[in-house]
Amino acid sequence: MPATTTLADDLWPDVQPATARRLMAAGLECFARQGYHATTTRDISAAAGMSSAALYVHFPSKAALLFEIVRSGHEQILAVVDRAVTGDGDPAARMRRLAEEFTEWHAHRHAVARVVAYELQSLPEDDYRVVVDLRRRIEQRAQDLVREGVAAGVFEVRDVRAASRAVLSLGIDVARWYEDRMRTSPKALGEQYADLVLRMLGADPA
Amino acid sequence: MPATTTLADDLWPDVQPATARRLMAAGLECFARQGYHATTTRDISAAAGMSSAALYVHFPSKAALLFEIVRSGHEQILAVVDRAVTGDGDPAARMRRLAEEFTEWHAHRHAVARVVAYELQSLPEDDYRVVVDLRRRIEQRAQDLVREGVAAGVFEVRDVRAASRAVLSLGIDVARWYEDRMRTSPKALGEQYADLVLRMLGADPA
Repeated sequence: MPATTTLADDLWPDVQPATARRLMAAGLECFARQGYHATTTRDISAAAGMSSAALYVHFPSKAALLFEIVRSGHEQILAVVDRAVTGDGDPAARMRRLAEEFTEWHAHRHAVARVVAYELQSLPEDDYRVVVDLRRRIEQRAQDLVREGVAAGVFEVRDVRAASRAVLSLGIDVARWYEDRMRTSPKALGEQYADLVLRMLGADPA
Repeated sequence: MPATTTLADDLWPDVQPATARRLMAAGLECFARQGYHATTTRDISAAAGMSSAALYVHFPSKAALLFEIVRSGHEQILAVVDRAVTGDGDPAARMRRLAEEFTEWHAHRHAVARVVAYELQSLPEDDYRVVVDLRRRIEQRAQDLVREGVAAGVFEVRDVRAASRAVLSLGIDVARWYEDRMRTSPKALGEQYADLVLRMLGADPA
């Protein structure tokens, strides 16, 4: 339980109360181990050391808990992207920050990032639409920055949509293979990936 | 059933008899819809229009069917990579072919590729080790080609392992987002990605 509590505080500092955070961490653990569909609300409440009734106080269903994990994950990613895109510097400097922090987020929070990326399809339709809208905004921000860089002569790109998608795709796939015991830290990986991303966009990383 | 049969013939032309292929396609469909853990052998045999007994003639368990999908997927990918790496041309030409065909494979077979990439952890330990060994060989081939390109002065790369992993990662993530109805064909996507990959490796795609 202490490990779950620490993880929950790190992942969702803004979710209140702490019990809801603990249930989300327990859900994450169950979804990661056995997948969303094979997980019951009883599994989640047991993993959180609570009764099923206590779960329903915070989440009306298993789907509502999944939605909260996926929605808040996307909102955190959108905030990371927004901060980078609207920050200081030319498009290359801002793209470096975007690639660094986007990659770092996916490595550091790989368990959440996996659910965020791969369990989307399990969401009820209305929830799914909310998340797809957040995704579109994330992709739009990345495209706008690439387009701005092309206009400024900093990037040279054949297809802006394809290149921006590749930038994000590279960071998202980190969630699939990254593990805590790896010798490259999330921050160091972010720096490596920023170099690769700038090169993909035809900019000199140096 | 006809759709499943066609898909099965396309995906596993070498698997005999056709009934085994049909069961693999049915398993794929169930795993994609509800995840491996929530799928029963009864779900799979029903999706294939067979009895559970008929399933056990070909696969002793659900895990054995998953293993066959994941193992044969990895062997197909290894063959794609091998063909590119040992083909004609300088390291850049061979890397172009690797990126093109690796990406095309993941786009064209995105349903299989998802199970291959994301359901690994569900395999029993011995099966998992077989697949991890195939993965290592795929990664090794990519690393060797990058290293050869660096030695030949065609590529300029800071960290060979990180760069080769990024090359494969970009292609694997295609399985997550690619859908059949997209306007970019698997082949066209492969060509776009080959340009991006060569740039990541510091080679001029032109």
